[in-house]
Amino acid sequence: MLQKKPLILVTNDDGITAPGIRMLIRIMNEIGDVVVVAPDKPQSAMGHAITINDALYCDPIIIEKNALQKEYSCSGTPVDCVKMATRQILNRKPDLCVSGINHGSNSAINVIYSGTMSAAVEAGIEGIPAIGFSLLDYSIDANFEPATTYVKTIVENVLLNGLPKGVILNVNIPRLEKKEIKGIKICRQADAHWAEKFDKRTNPMGREYYWLSGEFINEDKGEDTDEWALQNGYISIVPTQFDLTAHYFIKELNNWTLHD
Amino acid sequence: MLQKKPLILVTNDDGITAPGIRMLIRIMNEIGDVVVVAPDKPQSAMGHAITINDALYCDPIIIEKNALQKEYSCSGTPVDCVKMATRQILNRKPDLCVSGINHGSNSAINVIYSGTMSAAVEAGIEGIPAIGFSLLDYSIDANFEPATTYVKTIVENVLLNGLPKGVILNVNIPRLEKKEIKGIKICRQADAHWAEKFDKRTNPMGREYYWLSGEFINEDKGEDTDEWALQNGYISIVPTQFDLTAHYFIKELNNWTLHD
Repeated sequence: MLQKKPLILVTNDDGITAPGIRMLIRIMNEIGDVVVVAPDKPQSAMGHAITINDALYCDPIIIEKNALQKEYSCSGTPVDCVKMATRQILNRKPDLCVSGINHGSNSAINVIYSGTMSAAVEAGIEGIPAIGFSLLDYSIDANFEPATTYVKTIVENVLLNGLPKGVILNVNIPRLEKKEIKGIKICRQADAHWAEKFDKRTNPMGREYYWLSGEFINEDKGEDTDEWALQNGYISIVPTQFDLTAHYFIKELNNWTLHD
Repeated sequence: MLQKKPLILVTNDDGITAPGIRMLIRIMNEIGDVVVVAPDKPQSAMGHAITINDALYCDPIIIEKNALQKEYSCSGTPVDCVKMATRQILNRKPDLCVSGINHGSNSAINVIYSGTMSAAVEAGIEGIPAIGFSLLDYSIDANFEPATTYVKTIVENVLLNGLPKGVILNVNIPRLEKKEIKGIKICRQADAHWAEKFDKRTNPMGREYYWLSGEFINEDKGEDTDEWALQNGYISIVPTQFDLTAHYFIKELNNWTLHD
């Protein structure tokens, strides 16, 4: 299908040794020349954080013997990894950046907290076609096998069709056996949020501290949402953008009494 | 103008002692009942990061004698501060959340890296009208005085008109004397990006490390952008959203061969 081997940058937010990225590397090795630049430790929920007040380390690392891919372990955030890859490590702009496969959902509002998706978004900002993949299973022994053919199909479509400037794909995969997955649905981001609770505790020195926890609340029942797709056995793809302007509200704002 | 005193949550990403937030608190004290929940240290460029694998501390703090406001210093990110405020500290949903005044620009793509704006976005996700304010001056002795009447005007407009669900305001203020500021412009986010450079050094142990630096590149010459407004002496307001769906691309994606 493709004439020459594409250069594929692989990253994630669960860290370079996470089973999800190891699977993604294996799939990408079937498609292109793979370079991995990923965090040296878990960096979940880091959003679009970058490291501006600390030094960054980024070293070559061998995780698999006789591996096809080149790998670099980076002390920074997922977004740092993408910047480091494109500006320091790679000799040319990659043809694709894939991030994940994340252990856990990045559907709905989770896209904004997600290090996995922020890495893909950063690649998109740099003009690289990019996809974030997430499986709805947090566990270390999550089964990524049912997702593999779908991941390959989506990647091949992006390499073939390209993506418009400013658009990346947010792919979420339900925790199902392969035969239970009904297919792929193109969706919008569900209008859901977290209802946080803070678990208040006292440390051995007598000082109070808190753990963030919470419940995911989805009151958006739209059948065009990623949440609906995932709950109904589909893989969801949300085209995602980083122009955050609420264009529709500009006209209304111009009617406010903000001017002298 | 307003019947009862609004409850205003104030936060930032430069830390609770930064001159920018101290000025914002002073302005907000003229408008409502103020509660401050802000980071105990600088948290710039933290994006929408949240703390999920660490304990959070959040303690009352007195910074000014006989202050009108109540203040809490939090060990977490700007987004953590907003969650902590709304879920743990405040008895009721605030009428407004203001974040800043940031030392440095959050125009164009900076919105996505900004802890200041991410705090405002988080408040928006929780259904609270929210505004992020930033001054285009990084220095500790930045002059926030010229901005004060504009900040007040914008806040009063938001309290009066409200904001639609899913929209927050990103306000950037040029580094000018008051008489040089031409007014306020409603804008879209300029399509600009950073061209990063990594400064490679060697630590005393002989290990190579990097500092992230870079140059801001704006090739978007649109006169409807925040960059244009700021360069031409205006305060920019970009209505900003957290539905990241690229709705316009859904139809096109449905034409891809993603289905069996």
